[in-house]
Amino acid sequence: MAETFSFKVLANDGKARRGLVSMPRGEIRTPTFMPVGTGGTVKAMYMDQVRGVGVDIILGNTYHLMLRPGAERVARLGGLHEFARWPHPILTDSGGFQVMSLSKLRKLTEQGVNFRSHIDGAPYEMSPERSIEIQGLLDSDIQMQLDECTALPAKPKEIERAMELSLRWAERCKIAFGDQPGKAMFGIVQGGDSAPMRVRSAQALKAMDLKGYAVGGLAVGEPQSVMLEMLDITCPELPANRPRYLMGVGTPDDILKSVARGIDMFDCVMPTRAGRHGLAYTRRGKVNLRNARHADDPRPLDEESDCPAARDYSRAYLHHLVRSQESLGAMLLTWNNLSYYQKLMQDIRAAIEAQAFEARAAEIAEGWARGDIQAI
Amino acid sequence: MAETFSFKVLANDGKARRGLVSMPRGEIRTPTFMPVGTGGTVKAMYMDQVRGVGVDIILGNTYHLMLRPGAERVARLGGLHEFARWPHPILTDSGGFQVMSLSKLRKLTEQGVNFRSHIDGAPYEMSPERSIEIQGLLDSDIQMQLDECTALPAKPKEIERAMELSLRWAERCKIAFGDQPGKAMFGIVQGGDSAPMRVRSAQALKAMDLKGYAVGGLAVGEPQSVMLEMLDITCPELPANRPRYLMGVGTPDDILKSVARGIDMFDCVMPTRAGRHGLAYTRRGKVNLRNARHADDPRPLDEESDCPAARDYSRAYLHHLVRSQESLGAMLLTWNNLSYYQKLMQDIRAAIEAQAFEARAAEIAEGWARGDIQAI
Repeated sequence: MAETFSFKVLANDGKARRGLVSMPRGEIRTPTFMPVGTGGTVKAMYMDQVRGVGVDIILGNTYHLMLRPGAERVARLGGLHEFARWPHPILTDSGGFQVMSLSKLRKLTEQGVNFRSHIDGAPYEMSPERSIEIQGLLDSDIQMQLDECTALPAKPKEIERAMELSLRWAERCKIAFGDQPGKAMFGIVQGGDSAPMRVRSAQALKAMDLKGYAVGGLAVGEPQSVMLEMLDITCPELPANRPRYLMGVGTPDDILKSVARGIDMFDCVMPTRAGRHGLAYTRRGKVNLRNARHADDPRPLDEESDCPAARDYSRAYLHHLVRSQESLGAMLLTWNNLSYYQKLMQDIRAAIEAQAFEARAAEIAEGWARGDIQAI
Repeated sequence: MAETFSFKVLANDGKARRGLVSMPRGEIRTPTFMPVGTGGTVKAMYMDQVRGVGVDIILGNTYHLMLRPGAERVARLGGLHEFARWPHPILTDSGGFQVMSLSKLRKLTEQGVNFRSHIDGAPYEMSPERSIEIQGLLDSDIQMQLDECTALPAKPKEIERAMELSLRWAERCKIAFGDQPGKAMFGIVQGGDSAPMRVRSAQALKAMDLKGYAVGGLAVGEPQSVMLEMLDITCPELPANRPRYLMGVGTPDDILKSVARGIDMFDCVMPTRAGRHGLAYTRRGKVNLRNARHADDPRPLDEESDCPAARDYSRAYLHHLVRSQESLGAMLLTWNNLSYYQKLMQDIRAAIEAQAFEARAAEIAEGWARGDIQAI
């Protein structure tokens, strides 16, 4: 295992990159998709299943974990890897996004955010330094700077204020993180839907020479075209020898189009959340198992898959489980969805290596468009 | 595999029996505990986990399955074993118990019961013949007669009326079931808490020469002592060469005491339901993971268990999952509980073989009484 955090681009195909992050807890093959393990569990999954579908790294939510079970408690229990039984790399967000979306009575200042827990109303303080401290207590391998993420649409003045504050917080997080060779702290490009502000943010962060760069504040209500335009503008401003992480994205289609623009890392609740709502991601697009047309269908979701959830259970059974709100329905569909997302990433990585990304991406999108009724 | 249903007593120890049911879909080592797979799924478990903890036979609920997904649909899809991916023996109840406890607007006559679904209010008819027909559509290996189960306390006249009706329905079920050498239809002893009525019911059923006998209408509100007294009276009236099944029972303590009285088969929602409510069954008794004392406890539930759920996860983590209502909490605790119940049955079977059941039962009960704090 590597002793220090490093990133290597192994192959380029247009703007798409095939890379490798190495760090003491393991390697991350990029482009990669990180399942979200909000509160120390990837919902409805055993960790060995998560690993089994090909996951290199999962994401933990600092906000949720600091409230319950508490960062100091997780540290006493040996850190998040030990606590949740996931010995491989973990990335944690800063907590800022959920503080702004979930907590109550929050007050934002230059110093940080004061807020109350959405669970029991208890008061908390979050500053750039405290966010890094908490992520350290969790023993997170890739830690994110605290930032302020602006929901879109927003006024230019407001976007600029939040972006500049996020830059100052990036500096403070860098100092707080210090020198930890086996780990990384990533900065986050903000700037809303404003091209000049995205450029300003990316350039200022680049000057800080961080180990990786995220693009934040996208997929927060704007059309996909705006998100892709921001990536077109932002990615060229970021150093080529650092991983690029598009936060909170997204659909399989978002992923294909963002990889094409030079993104290396993704996370999203979509495959896990959809699995709990009766939706399956497949080679033939999204399948809604709640739909009555599945009630008598003996076919599996995808007989060619090597994931038991996709291959071994009839749609009729999955439909029954979803309609009956049986937890096995969520278990199987989450498994299927994470498996499909990982296969998609594997497919993308192989296509970039083969210098065939554009053609393969078109084939994949064509499969989704065909739909599952005629196809199988 | 056996071509016909058969039962052999392999060893006796006092009134306790170690036996073997053989049938085309597999063997059932008795005393056995059957996890409840209400609607074609043992809640929060994969079927390979159910098998993995040592389960020989599961129970399906006719009432739930006839309403959703429907017995004819299950038959079209290849039967319940194929539908739910459990190729081993399945016992189904008659549906009568849930019709009386869950359905709406029911009307009971000599012919059967008319009722409305608790899900959508749709009207259904259930007769002894229809119950056997449905259980046949499900392709159930051990089918139960339709009976009327009286909640206790009840008036003697009411107990007698229901018991006599159940006897007449047993005759009709026997005729409806006909000659199916690879399967079995069990009669059900009723008679509430009345010794003479239990004897009358058992003798009348014995005269029908059925392949197995259940004791029903117990664990329905009466003290454990009444249940055990009814077993003391009933078991000697039943033929020694037929399996005896105590329906809907029970706690580990109920099981020990009922095995001591000659019972061979059990089913209960307790281990699965408790698992969804933060309760773990262990060698040291019941552990409530919701309790704050577990919040910082790095110990597993039972480091000597070979069940990963019991051995590999800290109590602190389980506590966190339960408090956060994470589905992994229910998944792990259900797994632990079914594993513990199966280990208990294995322990009981070995003790009977060794002619040491009474002493071993006392040791097991002592382990529960010691509790988990001092013990581990």
